[in-house]
Amino acid sequence: MVYITRRERFSAAHKLAKSEWSDEKNLEVFGKCSNPNWHGHNYILHVTVKGKPEPSTGFVVDLSALSDVIKEHIIQKVDHKNMNVDVDFMKGLMTSTENIAIAFWNQLVKPVAELGAELHSVKLQETENNYVEYFGE
Amino acid sequence: MVYITRRERFSAAHKLAKSEWSDEKNLEVFGKCSNPNWHGHNYILHVTVKGKPEPSTGFVVDLSALSDVIKEHIIQKVDHKNMNVDVDFMKGLMTSTENIAIAFWNQLVKPVAELGAELHSVKLQETENNYVEYFGE
Amino acid sequence: MVYITRRERFSAAHKLAKSEWSDEKNLEVFGKCSNPNWHGHNYILHVTVKGKPEPSTGFVVDLSALSDVIKEHIIQKVDHKNMNVDVDFMKGLMTSTENIAIAFWNQLVKPVAELGAELHSVKLQETENNYVEYFGE
Amino acid sequence: MVYITRRERFSAAHKLAKSEWSDEKNLEVFGKCSNPNWHGHNYILHVTVKGKPEPSTGFVVDLSALSDVIKEHIIQKVDHKNMNVDVDFMKGLMTSTENIAIAFWNQLVKPVAELGAELHSVKLQETENNYVEYFGE
Amino acid sequence: MVYITRRERFSAAHKLAKSEWSDEKNLEVFGKCSNPNWHGHNYILHVTVKGKPEPSTGFVVDLSALSDVIKEHIIQKVDHKNMNVDVDFMKGLMTSTENIAIAFWNQLVKPVAELGAELHSVKLQETENNYVEYFGE
Amino acid sequence: MVYITRRERFSAAHKLAKSEWSDEKNLEVFGKCSNPNWHGHNYILHVTVKGKPEPSTGFVVDLSALSDVIKEHIIQKVDHKNMNVDVDFMKGLMTSTENIAIAFWNQLVKPVAELGAELHSVKLQETENNYVEYFGE
Repeated sequence: MVYITRRERFSAAHKLAKSEWSDEKNLEVFGKCSNPNWHGHNYILHVTVKGKPEPSTGFVVDLSALSDVIKEHIIQKVDHKNMNVDVDFMKGLMTSTENIAIAFWNQLVKPVAELGAELHSVKLQETENNYVEYFGE
Repeated sequence: MVYITRRERFSAAHKLAKSEWSDEKNLEVFGKCSNPNWHGHNYILHVTVKGKPEPSTGFVVDLSALSDVIKEHIIQKVDHKNMNVDVDFMKGLMTSTENIAIAFWNQLVKPVAELGAELHSVKLQETENNYVEYFGE
Repeated sequence: MVYITRRERFSAAHKLAKSEWSDEKNLEVFGKCSNPNWHGHNYILHVTVKGKPEPSTGFVVDLSALSDVIKEHIIQKVDHKNMNVDVDFMKGLMTSTENIAIAFWNQLVKPVAELGAELHSVKLQETENNYVEYFGE
Repeated sequence: MVYITRRERFSAAHKLAKSEWSDEKNLEVFGKCSNPNWHGHNYILHVTVKGKPEPSTGFVVDLSALSDVIKEHIIQKVDHKNMNVDVDFMKGLMTSTENIAIAFWNQLVKPVAELGAELHSVKLQETENNYVEYFGE
Repeated sequence: MVYITRRERFSAAHKLAKSEWSDEKNLEVFGKCSNPNWHGHNYILHVTVKGKPEPSTGFVVDLSALSDVIKEHIIQKVDHKNMNVDVDFMKGLMTSTENIAIAFWNQLVKPVAELGAELHSVKLQETENNYVEYFGE
Repeated sequence: MVYITRRERFSAAHKLAKSEWSDEKNLEVFGKCSNPNWHGHNYILHVTVKGKPEPSTGFVVDLSALSDVIKEHIIQKVDHKNMNVDVDFMKGLMTSTENIAIAFWNQLVKPVAELGAELHSVKLQETENNYVEYFGE
C-alpha cells in the first residue's frame, strides 16, 4: 500500500457566527472569527489516497486526474468564494476548519473511488499555525 | 546602514469590484476577485526599517517596539476584518495589494520615525504566488 | 474523529553532554552538540488533539484555549531559556529532541483532557532536517 | 515508542515512458513527464525510524549515523543522476514517485536495523504539490 | 513606483558540461553538475515588474495577464524539458542559473512592456540553497 | 551584473546583556533575550555576491567555492557555538542580529574578493519573524 498526496490551494472568506445569536454572544464564543463583515484565508488542502502502484505505470493514481477531481468537486466551488454563503455543500454548517475538512471528505470519497484508489485523508490548513486532518470516521 | 525586517500576519476578507459597475463588468475586469460575497487571504507583511545600530544595544530599533507599532497601526485594524468595509484608512480605495501596501506605508512612516529609525519598505504577500513592495515613492 | 493541530514556536539553548563524562568523551558521543558553552535552536512544536466536533460550534477544541494551554504548560517555561538549566520538567534528563517531546507530552496530556479533547501527538522540530513525534506510548 | 525523522535532498533527472511505446503513446499516458529528453526535480526525502530512546543518550538513533546511512545507500547513488539510467536499484522500474519510494525503503530497511532502530516510513516529495509515503507493506 | 512579483515554477533537466571537453575535464570544472546523463531541478521563478497603480483598478499590472506572459514566453518552453536540448533561447549557452536568468530577462522585457509595466528583476532559484537575480544590466 | 546567493545555516546560543548591568537592568532593556543562562536560534544566512558571468562556465562564482569560503570563515566558527563566548570575531560586541551581520560581512569581504567576485550583501535571519540585511556601508 502506497499513500500519495496532492496539494491544492484556495482563497475564501468566512466567519464563525450563529445567526440566532447576537454579535456580542458570537464575539464571546468565536472571538475575532465572528466579525460580521467576514474575514478570510488562503487555505491549503492536502488530499491523500492509497492503493497499490499499477505495474505498467508505477502509479497508484494518475495525479493529474486526482487534481482534476479535487478541482471539480472542491476548488471551483470554494476558491474566491464565501464559505458560508456561496458553497452548496456547506449550507447550514458552521464553517470551522473541522467541518470543512469533513465536508471535503464527503465530496471526494466517491469520485476518488472512481479513479480506482481509496481516499485516505483530507488535511486542511487554515493558517500557518493550525490545520485539521480527517480520515473518514 | 543596516536594514532590519519584522514579519507580521493577518487574515482578512476583500473583493475587487467597483460599486458603480455591474457584477458582469466587475467579473470581466477583476475576474474571480470580484465575487460579490467576498473572498479572503492570509496576508503576510514584511516591514523593513533602516538605521545605524545603537552602540550600547547593537539595535537599529527595538524589534518588540517595532512589532507593537505595526500591531497598533495596522494589524489590529485589519486582522479578521473586511479590507473594503472595516478599515478606515482604506475607505474609497480599491483593495488591490498595491493599494494596501501604499496605505500601510502611510500608516507606518511617522510612528517608525518616532522609534528613531527610517521606514525603508513595506512588502505585502497576498498568496504564495504574488507579493508587492513599496519604498515610499 | 477529527485531528486538529496547533503550531507554537520557541527559541532555547541546550547541550548534549553528561556531567560525569569528560569534554572529550562527550565530544566523541554527542559531537558538536556537546559544546560546553551551549548552542541553541528555534524549535517548532506541533500539538495534535483529537475528538468529535461539537455540533453548535464545529470545534473539536477551541484553538485559542489550546494555544493558551500550550503556552502556560510549555512555551513560557522554555522560550528564551536553557533547556538543561532553566526547565523544571527536564531536570535530570538528557535534552535530546526525543526526551523533550516525551516531556512535553507529559506536560500536556492532563490539561488537554480538561479542555474536553484527547492529546494525540507531539511533534517537535529541532532543525529543518530533523524532527521527532511521540504518541504517548 | 518515539518516531524520529531525518530529511535529505537530492536533484535528479528522470522521465516516465515505456521504451516499447511510441513517443505519442507515452505522451498520451504520461503527459509532459514523458519528454524524451528528460526533465528533473529537487526531491525531498524524509526517512522516519522508530524505537525507544536509549537512556544514557536520550537517542532513538544517532541522527548523524542515520544521515550517513541515507547518504551511503541512497543520496550518493541518486544525487545529480538520472533516475532511469544511472541508478542500479531502479533498473527496469518506472521512475514514478511511488516506485522510487518503495525502492528507497528496500535500500534502507536493513542498514537502519543495523543501527538498532526500525524503519517506519519513507516520504518522498517530488514537487511542492505532491509526495508519496510508504510504510513497507 | 510599486513593485509587484509573480512566482511561477517549472521542473527541468540540465547539465553543466562543454561538449569539446572530456568527461574528466567537465567533472573537474563542474563537479557533479556535469553528469553526462543529466540531472534536474524544480526551479522557482520570481518576475518583478514596476509601475504606478492605475487609479481605477489599483493595479500596476493585471497579475493574470503577467502570469500568461510568463507562461507563454518561458514556462511552456522549459517546463518538463531539458534546458540544454529543448529550449530554443538557450541554444549555445551554458545552462548555469546565471545564464538562464539573463535569458529569461531577454524573453520577458518586451512582452512585459507591452502590458504597460516595466520589467524590474528576474529571480531564479535552483535549489533551496542558491538563487540568482538579474536586473537587466 | 548578476547577483548570486548562497544560503547556509547554523545553530548557536547567545544572550543580549551587558555584564556591567544587573540582571534586572538587562531584563528591562533586552527583555527575555537577556536570560542569564542563554537561549539560542537556528540562524539562516544568505550571502549575495555580484559580478559578470565568466563566458566559458556561465558562473559569476563557483558556488561550491563560495560555500567553502562561508564555511571556513563563518560556519565552522559559529555552528553549535555560543556567539558571546566562543566566537573570536564577536568579542566585545553585543550579539544582536545587526552586529552579527556586520561582523559576517567583515569576515567575508576579502575572501569573496579573492574568488573574483564582489560581496553584495549579508542577510541573517534569526527567527521566522525577523532578519537583518547589511550591504557594507
